[in-house]
Amino acid sequence: MSPDPVLSRRAQAVAPFLAMDVMAAAGARERRGEGVVHMEVGQPSAPAPRAVIAAAQAALADGRIPYTEALGLPALRARIARHYAETYGVAVSPERVVVTTGSSAGFVLAFLALFEAGARIGVPRPGYPAYDGILRALDLIPQPLTLRREDRYAPTSALLREVHAAHPLSGLLVMSPANPSGTVIEPARLGELCATARSLGLPFISDEIYHGLSYGVPTATALQFDAGALVINSFSKFYCMTGWRVGWMVVPEALVRGIERLAQNLYISAPYLSQVAALAAFDTLDEIVAIREGYARNRALLLDALPSLGFTDIHPVDGAFYLYADIARHTDDASAFCRRMLDEAGVAATPGLDFDPEQGGHHIRFSFAGSNAECAEAVTRLKGWLR
Amino acid sequence: MSPDPVLSRRAQAVAPFLAMDVMAAAGARERRGEGVVHMEVGQPSAPAPRAVIAAAQAALADGRIPYTEALGLPALRARIARHYAETYGVAVSPERVVVTTGSSAGFVLAFLALFEAGARIGVPRPGYPAYDGILRALDLIPQPLTLRREDRYAPTSALLREVHAAHPLSGLLVMSPANPSGTVIEPARLGELCATARSLGLPFISDEIYHGLSYGVPTATALQFDAGALVINSFSKFYCMTGWRVGWMVVPEALVRGIERLAQNLYISAPYLSQVAALAAFDTLDEIVAIREGYARNRALLLDALPSLGFTDIHPVDGAFYLYADIARHTDDASAFCRRMLDEAGVAATPGLDFDPEQGGHHIRFSFAGSNAECAEAVTRLKGWLR
Repeated sequence: MSPDPVLSRRAQAVAPFLAMDVMAAAGARERRGEGVVHMEVGQPSAPAPRAVIAAAQAALADGRIPYTEALGLPALRARIARHYAETYGVAVSPERVVVTTGSSAGFVLAFLALFEAGARIGVPRPGYPAYDGILRALDLIPQPLTLRREDRYAPTSALLREVHAAHPLSGLLVMSPANPSGTVIEPARLGELCATARSLGLPFISDEIYHGLSYGVPTATALQFDAGALVINSFSKFYCMTGWRVGWMVVPEALVRGIERLAQNLYISAPYLSQVAALAAFDTLDEIVAIREGYARNRALLLDALPSLGFTDIHPVDGAFYLYADIARHTDDASAFCRRMLDEAGVAATPGLDFDPEQGGHHIRFSFAGSNAECAEAVTRLKGWLR
Repeated sequence: MSPDPVLSRRAQAVAPFLAMDVMAAAGARERRGEGVVHMEVGQPSAPAPRAVIAAAQAALADGRIPYTEALGLPALRARIARHYAETYGVAVSPERVVVTTGSSAGFVLAFLALFEAGARIGVPRPGYPAYDGILRALDLIPQPLTLRREDRYAPTSALLREVHAAHPLSGLLVMSPANPSGTVIEPARLGELCATARSLGLPFISDEIYHGLSYGVPTATALQFDAGALVINSFSKFYCMTGWRVGWMVVPEALVRGIERLAQNLYISAPYLSQVAALAAFDTLDEIVAIREGYARNRALLLDALPSLGFTDIHPVDGAFYLYADIARHTDDASAFCRRMLDEAGVAATPGLDFDPEQGGHHIRFSFAGSNAECAEAVTRLKGWLR
């Protein structure tokens, strides 16, 4: 008798999220009755805005929750298109908007639509770990663009040219504000990067999931510089809708039909309730601004406290709700450090190896998407623990 | 300046769903104020059971809709495992259950977990079109197993051996009850098929999304014959939860961690509300049985009326809510036939080319998941039109 099936090589190449392991350990600690301050997951602790929940409740009362068109509810596509006019002054036709099952689906659709197996795609390092995982699962090769302190840890045209010369790329993916650092690519530099990618013939994918969350610095969409860019975004972060699994893409017109076919086959449609609810999200700015003010207070608290506790070389926390720091003064084994920090101080954070397999061993990411009280408690605990 | 990005070859290889085009044409007709009987989509017209909707409402009232673990809410995984003991007498540990974003995600995860790029996978023809689309998007090759009348249009061990001898396979995917036909693989034959696939060293993927919907014939899960099989299922069809996008897989223990890593990276998690709601689904059998009785009445009506209207060689309608018929007596251009049927009779159905690019030109699929009144109206209209 033949043996049971075994895991494919491409699946073996996909690494786990260490943040998930930290979350599991934190959960175990909580079940033992010991408190945990959660700073390990990129998830707002605030619920979705009231109007979002009300819209979902109304749809539920109606009862039927059908498939939608693969590209999403027409009203939602139109509302997203309007958002680009209102927020960035960029004209986007609703036909170019694709509603997706979170940004996760956006990456899969973008990569499949653009790249053949074996293609090499530039991605920032440190960066969101699922980029690597999705690329490898789809037989694509992530090529790190190692971010430099002298560039304030943002990708630049020069860096792109260097990497492309050494390892010819088939495309580029950047994120601003970034995960794990919050660092924003300044608008002028983003424009240069778009132009350079275009001149090199590289499709430009811009992950803008943390747009709207920035602290005194301007953010630009890649669409301001290149209508041929693919933009990926989501309701998860800004609108506190993680578990709803709804996001969107803006894509060049020439790719719409191909992405529609991929979406029909791979997803059928994004969840109906979440789409109906997302339609209400854009008109909840008052609530969201208040939540963002809470993040800003957390950010100030951490930026004040952490440097003196041996967290150094913090990347510019321009946006998002992350802080990425060097902990070489404490350890070169960030995983062990995070385990001890959880065990001994009850503070959960993510070791840098999730974001950077090379340098991450002496880095750590804190998410400050929780409440101000939690953040203050984390600082108190860290001060006591590291004293 | 370089041109805009173009669609990849693998995305170009993905065909559209013709059913979606029919749906769009039917929608346009309705907007003109003309009635349509919808028999083109595989979607129950009944809403989800009351307890399912109540569970979602309760979760919404609570407010927080977070990510879940990538493999799904533990309570839901445990409940699904119990379903196998209760329904089939098969022991499945909750650890082997993976909650997915609809069966769509189940296919992607199964294919990525099992197969390297370039692998050839046996799929029934006629069959669900997304099999081909997903396989091609992931650089895999669908190899048709052309179903035979003498086998009552179900795949058999002999057919598998023949196809494998001519085109060596890396795996097999079957569906029972089937789409587009409703045909069930008899339990003894399913057991043979599992054993043959195992003896040939082929991973066995069993799409059981229409389980529970059968009319007087027994259905078996592949897990009764092979604990190493991958089973894919969903709440969409039996529990009338299409737009909720929640399904599940049962996988061999050795694949769980690999599939978890793929799911973390490609999906993060299935929608939270849908998972909470699905947990309530298993205890709504009374409602579902009443809905199934409605399908049974539709089935009887169609099987009585259609043969005399020139719909011949109907595949055994053992289950699901589909009827697949030969319309060679009317046409060899099923797409044109379906367009005229919609335009002139106001009945929407799907041309066979969605399910069989070779023979589908003279086949048609009716979905009878609507109400009895709708189905009766369709029969009346077809009688008038074809007279």
